[in-house]
Amino acid sequence: MKTRDRILQCSLEMFSQYGHVKVSTVEIANALEISPGNLYYHFNGKDQLLTELFYEYEAAINKLMSFYEDDVQAFEDYWAYLNVYVGLIQQYSFFYRDMKVIFDENKLLKRRFMRLVNNHHSFFLKMLTSLNASSEIKMSEAQQSSMADTICLIATNSLDTQLAEEDYDLQAITQRIVLRIIMLVEPYFSSESKEKYQHEVEQNPVEATSLFS
Amino acid sequence: MKTRDRILQCSLEMFSQYGHVKVSTVEIANALEISPGNLYYHFNGKDQLLTELFYEYEAAINKLMSFYEDDVQAFEDYWAYLNVYVGLIQQYSFFYRDMKVIFDENKLLKRRFMRLVNNHHSFFLKMLTSLNASSEIKMSEAQQSSMADTICLIATNSLDTQLAEEDYDLQAITQRIVLRIIMLVEPYFSSESKEKYQHEVEQNPVEATSLFS
Repeated sequence: MKTRDRILQCSLEMFSQYGHVKVSTVEIANALEISPGNLYYHFNGKDQLLTELFYEYEAAINKLMSFYEDDVQAFEDYWAYLNVYVGLIQQYSFFYRDMKVIFDENKLLKRRFMRLVNNHHSFFLKMLTSLNASSEIKMSEAQQSSMADTICLIATNSLDTQLAEEDYDLQAITQRIVLRIIMLVEPYFSSESKEKYQHEVEQNPVEATSLFS
Repeated sequence: MKTRDRILQCSLEMFSQYGHVKVSTVEIANALEISPGNLYYHFNGKDQLLTELFYEYEAAINKLMSFYEDDVQAFEDYWAYLNVYVGLIQQYSFFYRDMKVIFDENKLLKRRFMRLVNNHHSFFLKMLTSLNASSEIKMSEAQQSSMADTICLIATNSLDTQLAEEDYDLQAITQRIVLRIIMLVEPYFSSESKEKYQHEVEQNPVEATSLFS
């Protein structure tokens, strides 16, 4: 892996684990066993690191969104796609946690971040609308809009990663979030979908253990 | 109001609005038009301010919880109580937003914070369990546990306050969160409760506008 990419990856891991406020560029350089000067050769400080990580995240979400039409054809595809989508959000969830501090000084980046949050909402609404159109679920328009809000909050929430142990398991957290979303939508399923959903849950037995016990 | 209380109130407002990382004790003193020395006479730095604010919040939640049995007798009481409870959480929501940075250095306080999050979960679970016991809703035990998790995440989420304008309306945010919770529980209502719930919503016409539009 190129040094530049290694720096980005290590920064993301350290920002996620300790909070970006607590991590200095010198500590990132130390963790990578490179000199601070080498890091500065690639990135002009922490702000640039944050900006580049944000662009990386934004590009990944946009790329994923562009696959939506191909990837999601049948009922089952929603949950697989949802899993990838939520996993990507959770990977960069420190942005949601720390956005007040990160974006208040960079209005341009803040606007792009807000647009991304709007895109999440549009995606979840789109998902609910098409599930409704194909009679998989039965939900009023007001319910769809409110549910899309709620799903957006759950998907971007970082309480899961924050309460988790230091070396948290991103995949397990993502699965728990997706299961939580499915359980929210479940009462609106048609009886036919309920069977398929049951099948889906049996195939992917996610432990529905409580975060808080 | 005593100077000590004014300092606490102003700190809470500034931490909520700008993020506690960005606010110095000197800025708090300036906002209050007192000398930094006067502030330090009452509080030995920002860490002590954070600790005192946390104790204040913890005491308020515990006091509220002790009123639960008296306050919540009938179906309608749940929503009024929920409103006060969520409002209190939202008032101190910067703790949830910034906990990684605030509590990592103070393990004792972190344990107390975790206990408080567990208490939230117990409260929401208790609410769902008694609604179920009195046949107002129909939910399996697994559904109750999962729903309590979700409600806890929504109640402590700070995306609402973070996306809001600088001078956000705490009451409006709280109402939106409570409405979101009611809409999540709604599909499980008995037909009788649905009527009562409808009545409740009509009496408190909260704009169910999307955060993200």
